[in-house]
Order: sequence, then C-alpha cells, then structure tokens
Amino acid sequence: MAANVSSHYHVDLLVKEKRNLEEYENGDRHRQINNVISSPSSVLPPENGNGGIGLKLDINGGKGVTSNGGLSVSVPATPSLPPVISGWYADVSSLSPGEARFYEVEKVLFHGKSKYQELLVFQSKKHGKVAILDGSLQLTERDEFAYQEMLTHLPLCSIPHPKKVLLVGGGDGGILREISRHNSVEQIDICEIDEMIIDAYKKFFPDIAVGYKDPRVQVYIDNGIAFLKKIPEGTYDAIILDAFVEMGKHAVELADNDVLRSIAKALRPGGVVAIPSNNPWSIDSSMEAIILKCQNIFGGSVNYAWTTVPSYNNGTMGFLLCSTKGPKVDFKNPINPLNPNHFGVAEGPSKFYNSEIHAAAFCLPSFAKIATGSEVA
Amino acid sequence: MAANVSSHYHVDLLVKEKRNLEEYENGDRHRQINNVISSPSSVLPPENGNGGIGLKLDINGGKGVTSNGGLSVSVPATPSLPPVISGWYADVSSLSPGEARFYEVEKVLFHGKSKYQELLVFQSKKHGKVAILDGSLQLTERDEFAYQEMLTHLPLCSIPHPKKVLLVGGGDGGILREISRHNSVEQIDICEIDEMIIDAYKKFFPDIAVGYKDPRVQVYIDNGIAFLKKIPEGTYDAIILDAFVEMGKHAVELADNDVLRSIAKALRPGGVVAIPSNNPWSIDSSMEAIILKCQNIFGGSVNYAWTTVPSYNNGTMGFLLCSTKGPKVDFKNPINPLNPNHFGVAEGPSKFYNSEIHAAAFCLPSFAKIATGSEVA
Repeated sequence: MAANVSSHYHVDLLVKEKRNLEEYENGDRHRQINNVISSPSSVLPPENGNGGIGLKLDINGGKGVTSNGGLSVSVPATPSLPPVISGWYADVSSLSPGEARFYEVEKVLFHGKSKYQELLVFQSKKHGKVAILDGSLQLTERDEFAYQEMLTHLPLCSIPHPKKVLLVGGGDGGILREISRHNSVEQIDICEIDEMIIDAYKKFFPDIAVGYKDPRVQVYIDNGIAFLKKIPEGTYDAIILDAFVEMGKHAVELADNDVLRSIAKALRPGGVVAIPSNNPWSIDSSMEAIILKCQNIFGGSVNYAWTTVPSYNNGTMGFLLCSTKGPKVDFKNPINPLNPNHFGVAEGPSKFYNSEIHAAAFCLPSFAKIATGSEVA
Repeated sequence: MAANVSSHYHVDLLVKEKRNLEEYENGDRHRQINNVISSPSSVLPPENGNGGIGLKLDINGGKGVTSNGGLSVSVPATPSLPPVISGWYADVSSLSPGEARFYEVEKVLFHGKSKYQELLVFQSKKHGKVAILDGSLQLTERDEFAYQEMLTHLPLCSIPHPKKVLLVGGGDGGILREISRHNSVEQIDICEIDEMIIDAYKKFFPDIAVGYKDPRVQVYIDNGIAFLKKIPEGTYDAIILDAFVEMGKHAVELADNDVLRSIAKALRPGGVVAIPSNNPWSIDSSMEAIILKCQNIFGGSVNYAWTTVPSYNNGTMGFLLCSTKGPKVDFKNPINPLNPNHFGVAEGPSKFYNSEIHAAAFCLPSFAKIATGSEVA
C-alpha cells in the first residue's frame, strides 16, 4: 500500500510564481465584459500526464444557470469529468488524479487577471470565502490558519529572538499576521510580485490581510527570485517561502540550486528557512534526495514536518525546515514558544499552533519516514 | 475561525450498525435483475438538516452511460447538487456539508444488500478499491491502513501483554490483521452482525480480510450491543469498536450510557477500549462532555487522539481511548511497542503506525484542545 501511495505522484518543491497571462484587470469590469472567462490550459502545466486541466468559469451563460446567483463553474479538460455542476466549484489538482473536490458556491466575489496570474474569490456555503489562483485552491477561511501558523511558527519558534524576517510570496498577508505575534522581530520584509493579490486580499479577506497593518512590515513588489539574489549576505534570521501551488516551470526554478543558495546566503549563520513541500501522502523517495540537496546547500539542520489542512491535497501539507551552518537549530524541540499574550495585529491567540503540535509535526507515519530516509522507530 | 469550524457539525460517538433494509442479495444477481438500484433515503438518516441524502446507483441505464464500463453513480437528493457525473462516484457526507468528493470509477465490482445494510465495492482509478456502506465511504485501499493501524495499536501498545481482545464491527478484517501483529494475544474475538460484509471483503479485499486467517480469531455473527451485554465481567484486556459512519439512531444507541457501561464491565481492571470519534476539524464543545461521560463510566484514563486519513471527512479521524479503573494506563506514552519482526498474518511491517506517531496523535491543534477541554500549551 505504501508503494501504491507514493507511485502516483512525483513532485518537488512547490511554488506560486509569475505566469504569463493577460493584463491585470478589475474583476467587476471583467465580469461586465465577458460572459465566459477561459484560462489557457497552460495555466496548470501538464505534469506526468495528469495535467492539462483548464479552468473555465461560466457566468450567467450556458446551461449551468441555477438559483445560486446564476453561477456555474466547470473543469472541462479531463477526459471523463463532465464540465459542470451548477452552483459548485470543482477543485481538481494534478497532484490528486482520480479525485475532484466540489465546494458549494454562494457568490463569486472577485475575478481578476494580472499580468502574472488569475485570481478568483467566491463565498462558499460552508467553508467561508475561498481563493483560487490560476485554477489552484489557495486557501479557505475555514482552515487557512493551520497552514499560515505552521509555516510561520515552525521556523520562528525554533530560534531565539528572531529580528529580521523575509517573506517571499504570501501576498495574502496571513503569514505577516503570524509573524506579527513575535515581539522580538524588528523588521518584516515581504517580496510579492503581484499587487493584485494584495489588493484583493485586503478587500475580501481583511482577517488575513490584517498582517499588512503591522508597522514593521515593508512591502517590496518584485520577482522573488530576483529579490533573493540581491540580498546582502547574512541579512535575515528567517526566510519564509509562501509558495505551494501546482508545480510547473517556476517551481523547478525555485527549487533550483541557485535559488536555494541565494536563500542560504541571505540568512545569517544559524538562520532558518521554511518551504512548503509535498504532503506526506504524496511524497516518494525523491524526497530523500531533496533533503540531501538541502543539507548540502544549507549546511545546518534539515527536517521535514507536516500538518493537517483539510482543503489541501490529501488534507495535509508538508514543510521543509532548513538552517544554515552556525548555531545549531533543533527544529523538533522549539526553544522560542509563542507568547499567548502577544497577538501583534492578529485579533486573538493562535488557533492552531502550540508547542505540542510543533513537536508532533515532525513525527511521521512509517511510510513517510521511509520516503524521507529516516529510520522507523 | 475556530468557532466557524465547530459550529457546522454536532456529532457524537459514531457507529455502523444494523439497518432495516431488504434481504441480503448477491450483488451479481442484483445487477442482472435491476438496472437501477435505489436505496430509501432513510439509509442515511437526516441529521441536523444536512441529511436525507439517498444513494442512487444507475448501471447500464440512463444518460450516464460513458466509456467507463457504462457506469454512472449519482447522489440526487441535495437541493443544488445535480445527480450525475458520469464515471465518478460522489462521496457526500452529512458531516461535511457544502462539500462533495468525487472519485473516478473504473468498474463496479460488487453491489449487495443484506437485511442490515447495503455494500458497494468499486475499482477506482487512483485510490485502489473503494467500499461504500449505506452510502458512506468505508475505506479505500490507498489509505485504509492508517485508520486500521491507529485504531488497533493505540490501545494495544498502551498496555503490557494484551491477551484477550474483542473487536465489535470491523467485518472487513483489517483490524484483525493489525491485532495479529501482537504475539502476546491469545484470543481474538470478533462480533460482526453482517456475514455479507465478511464474504465481500474476503472476495474483493484479500489484503484486508487476511486478518481472518489468524488461527486465534473466533467469529461471532451477532448484534454488537446484545453481544457486549452478555460478556462476563472482566473478560477482555482490550475492546476495539470499529464503527464510524454517519451518525444515526444506532450511533446514539452505541454511545448510550448502558452500552458504554457494558464495555467497561467486559474489560478487566486497567483494560482499554478504542472508539472512533469526531475528527479534529468537526469536534465542538460537546466533545468535552463526551470525555467527561467516559471518565465517569470507565473510571481510568480518557484521551482523545487523531490521525490523517485522506479519504475521511476533513482528511482526519479522531479516536477516544479509555481505560477502566485499575492499573494506570498512560495512552500518550505507550509501553508496548510493535515488534517490527512480528507480522502475524499481515504481509509486512506496519505502514503507518510507529511509536512516534502514537505519541504525536495525542497532540492537538489549539482549537481542538479547547474543544476537548484541555489547556493550550
């Protein structure tokens, strides 16, 4: 069974990055102009024969008209999946072939294209607002905090007094909200390529984009890879990559040795980086090679962790935690617990992260231990 | 958000149990007789307004005919979910409103009704064989081992040298397969109400039903609740309830104080029981009351644990672990690790369970700690 689990998927480090789409347009204007918005199928690049899935959004037209605000959403390009369930959004991922998740839609709130990517925001019936980027589910309000909190606090709670933190991607602001809980932090830089993302999240997800309200935040609108290469050596205590959608050309780019070396160089000795990675149910033996590569490049600790996020593939998300050569970082035994009385700009204490769940995130099922090259206890 | 998570669902202990359907019929015969098999909507009892979902299986007839062996499967009864995606099975659960999971179907292998329930087995495209009982997904070959191993080894690895073990339900045999790994066990009793389940799993899931090959296994075809009441006091070291589908009248029955007292009485002092429970993302404050009730009835330790099972609601499954008054049981720090060289009738070592994942299963996200009444660390 373990072999069965790992054989379907072969993915590497994942990233959301620049895409060559059309000009950024306001969603409302877009909706007035077009009844049917079709993204090119290249939005989700074919991947091991599972891809080529195009997102087609059919508004006020076609046979999908229902009482749900005249909305229908369809995913037409797989051979045997028919195009439309009226009033439901189909989440189809090249990482989960043979499976489709449908969310009941109450209302489309935003649909816009920038020169980089295409964002869809809808109000779901039971999962809060949902954001879809280039046809991939980015987050739901119901469970976004699990991902945001773990990606942030796994690295920041593992080192003493982090002061300078860089976020690459993460334009939604949720990671900024979580960094904000750390009082020791003096400087929070975010490099996000796409202003449309920031604007849309500020408008439709104020509880997530609240992170931008932290006065320590400095926003750089730039290409993350170019930005990383410009950073003076040893600048940051921690870097967080918020980058996890379907792997494509740009994911390879970010997993490229040069990019990882740029990150390692930008970190101080004993500095840490968190990178979203394959979920435990989709990892295979290539994960061991990735970990070895990271060990070579970063020179400190490299660990794989995971957590539960129901909306993501297999209901889980994996993380790579790496530290550079220098003061030893023991990710599995965090030394910098969250102060439950410091919320920063967040509205209350963390909902998911605590010191116990931090340590538990590094405990893997046996099949995942084997795939990551660690011994089964 | 945590409030949002918990407000949609209100469920208690879950169980698959007797249903009043038609006579047990062989699936092949059934298929010859009928083109359309419709279960009464009472198969999935209405639950907080989310239920009333009927399973309709349309074989070789209707508009759903495709190249996939002429199969279509539909879930027609929710107001806005249309009936058919040809070639895909719709998993719709009253525990996950506003969401539907579709699995690509290659072939229906079995469909049968007993006087208790209705079983559907199909070969999926990417998740192995899938079993559906009364319209609820029971297991997929891709991830069944996660549930079976955790439900078995969380209790059995927490006590020294278990000798007598009772399984209630679990007719598929997967729990038997897992109990088989424990060499100290001398007696494995299983009480399963429905012979059809046993026969179908032996035929279509030999890697799961392999558990029946253990010579220590004694099968009792009986109603689990009646069986529990007949057991002499202090008979078993451990009882495992394999019972987790949609809650209905019979779930209440099993969660009934009388039934829990029967289980407590059937256990020796310091004996243990494992009961599938709400998943972490669906628990609410009623969980604290359930835990308190179990503490009163069992008199020893009561703990909540969870694990990842992608095919189940929210990709996770919860467990209640209880021990009776007597030698103290510390579920969080297991004292009886699996011997990796003892497979019993299983074909190899466990794929999921290990001592680390055992301990990690008791570490909860903060919102779940609050819902179960434990302090956030």
